[in-house]
Amino acid sequence: VSLERALAAVVGDRHALVDPGLRAPYERDWTGRFGAPARIVVRPGSAAEVAEIVRICAQEGAAIVPQGGNTGLVGGGVPRGGEVVVSLGRLDAIGSVDAALGQVTVGAGATLAALQAACRAAGLDAGLDFGARDTATVGGAVACDAGGVKALRHGTARAHVAGVEAVLADGSVVSRLAGLVKDNAGYDLPALLAGSEGTLGIITAVRWRAVPAAPARVAALVPLASAEAAAELLAALRAHAPSLESCEFFLDDGLELVLRHQRRPAPVRRAPMYVLAECAATADPTAELAAALDACGIEDAVVADDTAGREGLWRLREGHTEAIGAAGIPHKLDVGVPLARLGRFLAEVPRVVERAVPGARTILFGHLGDGNVHVNVLGPEPDDERVDDAVLELVCDCGGTISAEHGVGVAKARWLERARDAADVAAMRAVKRALDPAGILNPGVLLPNPAPAAGAGADL
Amino acid sequence: VSLERALAAVVGDRHALVDPGLRAPYERDWTGRFGAPARIVVRPGSAAEVAEIVRICAQEGAAIVPQGGNTGLVGGGVPRGGEVVVSLGRLDAIGSVDAALGQVTVGAGATLAALQAACRAAGLDAGLDFGARDTATVGGAVACDAGGVKALRHGTARAHVAGVEAVLADGSVVSRLAGLVKDNAGYDLPALLAGSEGTLGIITAVRWRAVPAAPARVAALVPLASAEAAAELLAALRAHAPSLESCEFFLDDGLELVLRHQRRPAPVRRAPMYVLAECAATADPTAELAAALDACGIEDAVVADDTAGREGLWRLREGHTEAIGAAGIPHKLDVGVPLARLGRFLAEVPRVVERAVPGARTILFGHLGDGNVHVNVLGPEPDDERVDDAVLELVCDCGGTISAEHGVGVAKARWLERARDAADVAAMRAVKRALDPAGILNPGVLLPNPAPAAGAGADL
Repeated sequence: VSLERALAAVVGDRHALVDPGLRAPYERDWTGRFGAPARIVVRPGSAAEVAEIVRICAQEGAAIVPQGGNTGLVGGGVPRGGEVVVSLGRLDAIGSVDAALGQVTVGAGATLAALQAACRAAGLDAGLDFGARDTATVGGAVACDAGGVKALRHGTARAHVAGVEAVLADGSVVSRLAGLVKDNAGYDLPALLAGSEGTLGIITAVRWRAVPAAPARVAALVPLASAEAAAELLAALRAHAPSLESCEFFLDDGLELVLRHQRRPAPVRRAPMYVLAECAATADPTAELAAALDACGIEDAVVADDTAGREGLWRLREGHTEAIGAAGIPHKLDVGVPLARLGRFLAEVPRVVERAVPGARTILFGHLGDGNVHVNVLGPEPDDERVDDAVLELVCDCGGTISAEHGVGVAKARWLERARDAADVAAMRAVKRALDPAGILNPGVLLPNPAPAAGAGADL
Repeated sequence: VSLERALAAVVGDRHALVDPGLRAPYERDWTGRFGAPARIVVRPGSAAEVAEIVRICAQEGAAIVPQGGNTGLVGGGVPRGGEVVVSLGRLDAIGSVDAALGQVTVGAGATLAALQAACRAAGLDAGLDFGARDTATVGGAVACDAGGVKALRHGTARAHVAGVEAVLADGSVVSRLAGLVKDNAGYDLPALLAGSEGTLGIITAVRWRAVPAAPARVAALVPLASAEAAAELLAALRAHAPSLESCEFFLDDGLELVLRHQRRPAPVRRAPMYVLAECAATADPTAELAAALDACGIEDAVVADDTAGREGLWRLREGHTEAIGAAGIPHKLDVGVPLARLGRFLAEVPRVVERAVPGARTILFGHLGDGNVHVNVLGPEPDDERVDDAVLELVCDCGGTISAEHGVGVAKARWLERARDAADVAAMRAVKRALDPAGILNPGVLLPNPAPAAGAGADL
């Protein structure tokens, strides 16, 4: 009880949630697959409060789960049971945008949509976008190195980090928010914290690197016969359309699910596979897109250069998550494979899933240009990991990654040693032990076991 | 002697240099300011040989200095006295360029120029360029997070790292060369190694991310009255010329030195300051450049859109290093300041230098668009650090960085604690201790003191 009181004294009673009803929204993830009761949920209002919370927890040896918008899909932002949840939502300030430099300092708790709006108002583009934009936070996006639909052109969240402010496991604060374009004085701790999923520090603010605005946009939804045809189209887009910003894909059974959920007719000829490509530039990029389609002999693409039309096409792609969620609690596996093996992977996934759990339903979609596939499986119980294992084994066989853009979380932690070399995992463990010797930051996430106490170090 | 023999057995006698005459080129830096005798210089021919060398050195507790093209300017790549120099020059293989993905795997010892040529042949641009391109290696550029003249648009070396292969302090090998566009399975060790200056691992290969080629180029050399006028021009270039790739500056005394050294007349009206800007695009960017010049009312710029003309202008900027080197052994301080404080910094540097060492000669040039100034001082003895201290103190006062693109090396290691917060330096020390507990990798570089042995850890 004393820990709860000490934390409440830091954030105020209003922001120290001990009542189960108040805690509940912070305790379970969006899909419903992950979560457990927290010891307490605290909502600090400043980096100084975060630092004080961490100092208190460190003293008590209390485990901490940092949480942004709770849109994560690998269980990394919800309690495993009994942790202190530190919700960063109140750290939502967005500084003034330095338009000349293309940078802005943004609180970890600001939503991606809010950052996008601030950049837009300054004539820039945040350069990062994904479906959960209205809820996901910038801190969470950086902590998990989120990807999304623009990574093809602008990189993942990490590419937009010009600096961070973060609280380390001892409550000390590292601040690199000066906004210098070049700064290589010492190790790039912000780059290390990006993608560390809250296991090395709690990001409280980000110095964000935006990209120039590209307001002239055109999108095309293209029905295709096969993954090979999609790969050809991607190559043509790369060759003919320097303005290519997104190149997404989904399959016909996914489209069917989305159309039923959204109660609308198909706006395109039905086919086994669909590619949704968008070009963005300062001047109309329609000719570039058309050249790529022509090069592939494609005549039945649905092209939209107006906002409503484009958004209608994007709803088909982005609607997958919601339509699948409405049909059940999915196993969601975010994986990546080299483009040369994407066709093989897409063909084999349904087979390995069927072998693992007969009757399970597999829905595939994702970011074609990045070789990034979201494997969604409906049917198996949330804690039945046979499907996960089968899919991740196939990914490793294909030379791919068990996590392209969602992170490792608790969902795939035990897979990390299969996905990375022993030397690589040993180095990660050493870094974790160095920065969080007591293992209080997001234990169970990313690395398969809690880091041994400092000094134990036999597995370096 | 047994260490020397063991190392020779790994690389072969021909590549184990113990004779002082043979070792000499590896023992002193380009400026002549840094260097000392090595114990031995070894030239491994593979990552496996590097790993074996490190294992042997780790066993013996022998310190290692990794070396690329030996073009570093902060003493980080030459011995401090008695170390084993591991020269990576023979690891110069360049794989086939994946043009669709824009990636290529390149050995650490390949020169930047060789990488540039390979990218060019595949219709791409390496995206990184600086004067030492013919000698500097890709491994060294990544290890030191080199910047250069294109960082304004394409970022520093770090931005081009899609993965690395590296040998850690225990001789284990981390390999992340799969070339996946998105891969966030665990900590981004390649990002941590980039800029770690050989203190956390020895990079043996890099998966390089190139950028699209932009063959249509136009450069302008603009005489200007002041730093304020230069800042105005930079803002106009950013506003009117999305194709801006470089924005460099130098002053009139530097130009005078270069003109005398190159025995050529001035191709431009003499003025206190000069900006050299280059735009690069797929289609002729002359109109963009002209619009920016017009917006500033500039009528006496020298504009060149042919290769010979552009190269003539660039020789004025790039010739600074050689002309200064011919005039003496300079103190070279690579620093960065926020753009808003660049004018103040440029005005005050000569004054603080004169106060520190009366009669010293200060030459300033650098990358305007990055706020990155190369402070060169002729006059003080190589080991007289009063000038360095005065300039770095001014940089810190201006909220800048003690290292923008050259790294910390041995030259600025004792300054790191002034430049970064205590928590920041403590975290760096913890990471160093975690990955190199015995402190054998490039001791004395980057961090001010050798890392204490594992377990000592009192300053975490």
